[in-house]
Amino acid sequence: MERLINPEDHIHRRETADLLIFNVLLTLTIMTIWLFRQRRVRLLHETGGAMLYGLIMGAVLRYGTPPSLPQSTLIFSCWNLQTTPATLMVNLSDQVFEYQYIGEVANDNVKAHQGNKMLRKLTFDPEVFFNILLPPIIFNAAYSLDKRPFFHNFGSVLTYAFFGTVISCIVIGAIMFGFVQIMSNLGQTEGMDLFFTDCLYFGALMSATDPVTVLAIFTELHVDADLYTLLFGESVLNDAVAIVLSSSIAAYRPPESPAAFSASAFFLSVGHFIGIFAGSFAMGTLYTFITALISFALYLLNSGIGFTSYKLRMEKLDQITKFTNLYEYPQVETGLFFLMSWSAFLSAEACGLTGIVAVLFCGMTQSHYTYFNLSSEAKSITKQVCEFMNFLAENFIFCYMGLAMFTFLNHVFNALFIAGAFLAIFASRACNIYPLSFLLNLGRKKKIPCSFQHMMMFSGLRGAIAFALAIRDTSTESKQMMLTTTLLTVFFTVWIFGSGTVPMLSCLSIRVGVDPSEDSKAEITTQTDARERAWLFRMWNAFDHNFLMPILTRSGSPLTTTLPAWCGPFARLMSSPQTYRSRENVENLSSKPTTNFPDIVVSPETTENNDRQAPASGNCPTSHQLTKKTCKKESSGSVALS
Amino acid sequence: MERLINPEDHIHRRETADLLIFNVLLTLTIMTIWLFRQRRVRLLHETGGAMLYGLIMGAVLRYGTPPSLPQSTLIFSCWNLQTTPATLMVNLSDQVFEYQYIGEVANDNVKAHQGNKMLRKLTFDPEVFFNILLPPIIFNAAYSLDKRPFFHNFGSVLTYAFFGTVISCIVIGAIMFGFVQIMSNLGQTEGMDLFFTDCLYFGALMSATDPVTVLAIFTELHVDADLYTLLFGESVLNDAVAIVLSSSIAAYRPPESPAAFSASAFFLSVGHFIGIFAGSFAMGTLYTFITALISFALYLLNSGIGFTSYKLRMEKLDQITKFTNLYEYPQVETGLFFLMSWSAFLSAEACGLTGIVAVLFCGMTQSHYTYFNLSSEAKSITKQVCEFMNFLAENFIFCYMGLAMFTFLNHVFNALFIAGAFLAIFASRACNIYPLSFLLNLGRKKKIPCSFQHMMMFSGLRGAIAFALAIRDTSTESKQMMLTTTLLTVFFTVWIFGSGTVPMLSCLSIRVGVDPSEDSKAEITTQTDARERAWLFRMWNAFDHNFLMPILTRSGSPLTTTLPAWCGPFARLMSSPQTYRSRENVENLSSKPTTNFPDIVVSPETTENNDRQAPASGNCPTSHQLTKKTCKKESSGSVALS
Repeated sequence: MERLINPEDHIHRRETADLLIFNVLLTLTIMTIWLFRQRRVRLLHETGGAMLYGLIMGAVLRYGTPPSLPQSTLIFSCWNLQTTPATLMVNLSDQVFEYQYIGEVANDNVKAHQGNKMLRKLTFDPEVFFNILLPPIIFNAAYSLDKRPFFHNFGSVLTYAFFGTVISCIVIGAIMFGFVQIMSNLGQTEGMDLFFTDCLYFGALMSATDPVTVLAIFTELHVDADLYTLLFGESVLNDAVAIVLSSSIAAYRPPESPAAFSASAFFLSVGHFIGIFAGSFAMGTLYTFITALISFALYLLNSGIGFTSYKLRMEKLDQITKFTNLYEYPQVETGLFFLMSWSAFLSAEACGLTGIVAVLFCGMTQSHYTYFNLSSEAKSITKQVCEFMNFLAENFIFCYMGLAMFTFLNHVFNALFIAGAFLAIFASRACNIYPLSFLLNLGRKKKIPCSFQHMMMFSGLRGAIAFALAIRDTSTESKQMMLTTTLLTVFFTVWIFGSGTVPMLSCLSIRVGVDPSEDSKAEITTQTDARERAWLFRMWNAFDHNFLMPILTRSGSPLTTTLPAWCGPFARLMSSPQTYRSRENVENLSSKPTTNFPDIVVSPETTENNDRQAPASGNCPTSHQLTKKTCKKESSGSVALS
Repeated sequence: MERLINPEDHIHRRETADLLIFNVLLTLTIMTIWLFRQRRVRLLHETGGAMLYGLIMGAVLRYGTPPSLPQSTLIFSCWNLQTTPATLMVNLSDQVFEYQYIGEVANDNVKAHQGNKMLRKLTFDPEVFFNILLPPIIFNAAYSLDKRPFFHNFGSVLTYAFFGTVISCIVIGAIMFGFVQIMSNLGQTEGMDLFFTDCLYFGALMSATDPVTVLAIFTELHVDADLYTLLFGESVLNDAVAIVLSSSIAAYRPPESPAAFSASAFFLSVGHFIGIFAGSFAMGTLYTFITALISFALYLLNSGIGFTSYKLRMEKLDQITKFTNLYEYPQVETGLFFLMSWSAFLSAEACGLTGIVAVLFCGMTQSHYTYFNLSSEAKSITKQVCEFMNFLAENFIFCYMGLAMFTFLNHVFNALFIAGAFLAIFASRACNIYPLSFLLNLGRKKKIPCSFQHMMMFSGLRGAIAFALAIRDTSTESKQMMLTTTLLTVFFTVWIFGSGTVPMLSCLSIRVGVDPSEDSKAEITTQTDARERAWLFRMWNAFDHNFLMPILTRSGSPLTTTLPAWCGPFARLMSSPQTYRSRENVENLSSKPTTNFPDIVVSPETTENNDRQAPASGNCPTSHQLTKKTCKKESSGSVALS
């Protein structure tokens, strides 16, 4: 049989064997997850376990496989080549072979394993992280975000996410710069360019926190909802800030010398930050609006109402409730939903914006608008597919981080730099949480207690985003050193802090086992102070309720009641039958102030029930009241895997 | 802002733009699907629409983008290179760049667009087809296969799939060889190696039928179940046969000259076929057994019973029904299920077997064994994820086939070869269906009527597998000509035959709108002649019922009743609580013959209900009887998208 195998078959077999390694790792991880959860092991979280498996497998592959053939590490000189084309055609004894450009390799760092096909495959393209693995994780976090407590703590979350991340970045940058000075005095930085901007860049990538372990334990133990929201909200938004921050710092290139400070370059970077952030936000939101409008239009057409005259539709209205299943093709809806969300990511990347940020806001807005237009089957499928993709991608990334410790061949270990990084992450977290909490407590009705602050300080774990940012650029030795240090930080924080969550909770005597229904009762009483919220917030709220919700979804108040009178024809065209149905009810309600905030911001779980109740009762505000209690309960379960 | 963009960013943006093109195409296709289904358009099926969109987009990209820079098409000679390493390190003014091996290019067929990055990306790696896109489609077909009618027509399906495909391959090969002789007389085959084995290879790849369009219409119109099963079963198995056949023919290399016949090489090829097929079958089944055993063990451990002593478990049995949700982690189960199924594919490929065949049998057996051990949430998620992946992959492939017409740069059009191929597919289909149907009717109780035979003859559409096999190897001009011809055949059959399905059905007066419940009643009466089935079949049936089902699933009869007395301890260890519960009932039943076939082969839909009823009634045979009617009804809906 041996003679049947040609060289290309060998490559193919090796590739499938590589994938098989990942499959085995993931299978092991999943079975461990099951065992941990079943035995309620909280000492080592599953992500920590995944990293451990990856580490072991990486060591086996690194030291168990022979280095590649010597010819792969030879460097060829083609003097007739002036530039580096994307595709290189090489003529070899009258046969033409095609080679594809991979990237530049530091000349002095070509290792013996460099050409080892298996290790190369396993240290795969960082673009796979950014284009395939991260989007589902970020999207799921945004899509499953319980928006009611999130908006209750909106100001605090924003403060931690924006100012906190910037403070963290600067503090880490400053401390690392100090350590780099020591290294340079000891002669350890030869051949490395380590200016202050490089230290800041490292600060930006290390500022992305990923407390997945802590949040999983919080969910399991039913920790206080405010603490959960503060931590979860911060970690979701802070990824976006850290990503844009790192790209802005990379874009900071003073014209004179990299070490000098240039005001114009600095303001260009700040402009870059604002531009990229705003652009990505706009891109994500735009795609949601398109998706919501398409799904709304499909709904109108599907229900047999269409964009016909107002009168005709009112006549058809009586037939509409007879259809039990308006949507026959949940696959179509689900496909559209995911393709549009991924398109938001790709469009942002293609425009030079940040896809992760776009997909984050896309996820948040999709669950706020498009979700309402989906059929109940599609709602269930989108949620299940999201959670399943998140589950696989997250475990894969943690396995991969373990693997990368051995399969990435150009690690640069520097004891001083590593020590500096460990000091810096603690110092930066402290400079982020404590001063900002103090300032926030000045304005907050419900103060953030000291125990919460300590817990947030403790939960500054580093994870997937920091790693993904670090592995994206490993062209120079200093960048390779940053990757090595980042990996060690991730290992340390996930293993040590992750295992210490339960002892820390009891040490700080933070109450666990909070009854969600009790909690939501307390929150309902605080609704009365919704009016005391900021003016900007109330404005947005009213705009969302009166215009966006009715235009984009079939669950809002009818446009006919919220738009000015001269918009009548447009309003009638865009209103959905459900809202027509409850017109009389809502017209009575619309005389009341519409700024009662928590009635409008509804989490996906609430709408699920709402959707089922809508055809029967038709009166949205009432059904919101009814489902408020169940919402909290369900949602706390749904984040269990995020 | 322009100065911030470095060349690598440009590559990244281009790549995301490419993906965006596919997203736009898929979104358009999905919206068209919705429109077609809503308006009940049956003239052009959605897959035909997808190809059309792909074709238009391909034309725009091909003629709307400038050819690449001239330097990309230059061929460099590196005389110090002796072989082709996987990784090429090129030194260019003291910077080292890394290039990766892509493949050999026919020297005389380097086109102006060769280095065009966008077209290169869009004509992507054929391995992506085989490793990413085809497995979900094949797995879904196998997993959603309604096994009751399939096993009723098992002999006929096998005959069409095995003998039919071999006949088809030989007939196409012979006809094509005739045309090649004419081409050679006309001097059109210069520089091409077109021996009889090449024609047979083309015959093998063209023998893979893909009547997705026809089957979708059959489901929609509720065509006779036997006709549906014959066609669907044939198309599922015939892919496997065609894939293994083509690899066996590629492996046929007579030692003297490619044109000569060598008996030893021929028998080596036949051995190759049998070995690969049996090996792949064994690999797929092995992974299912592992998955089923793991999920069964997880179930036993999860239910708190574990592998403790028989007495202890009997005591715990009373508590067991109190648990309403034994499985808390459907994601874990689902993850395990899909990872193991994909591992079957990868293991087969890594061992030099055929992954598609392994995943086909893995899917069939997973739905027969593992499915029983899953929780109802996991059952629902696996089915939804399967269908969703199939939906996306299928539409993507058809879009891509349209695109490939323009983005693949080395098309070779030969009028004679194309004409020959069109003649050959009709002739081969006729030689397959009519003689085999005649032979089958000699032995069948329920004959295959002439109208069914004509419809099967008509449904010989070519699709994804033929294309995937053709694009896998395009290294020589003759192989490029085969790809071009295959693409044209796919377009022609999908558009023409796909559109003609409804007229053809009415022309042949095949009854549509068959009431599934009526049909299943008729089938129940035919159960009595189950005993008349072949001896081998009854043996397998008894073995499956008495040993495999109880060992691998928690829904079979308890092993304690089916195994010989001396296996008692093992039997008690492996029996599930459900079966213990109903021990007394089953012991009474076990005196009756257990070879009553249709009671055992249960489709996924049946088990869904069964699973819910099992804890209450506990008596499996009864619940099978109860769900028999609903099974048929549900399953016909579930195949709507396959």
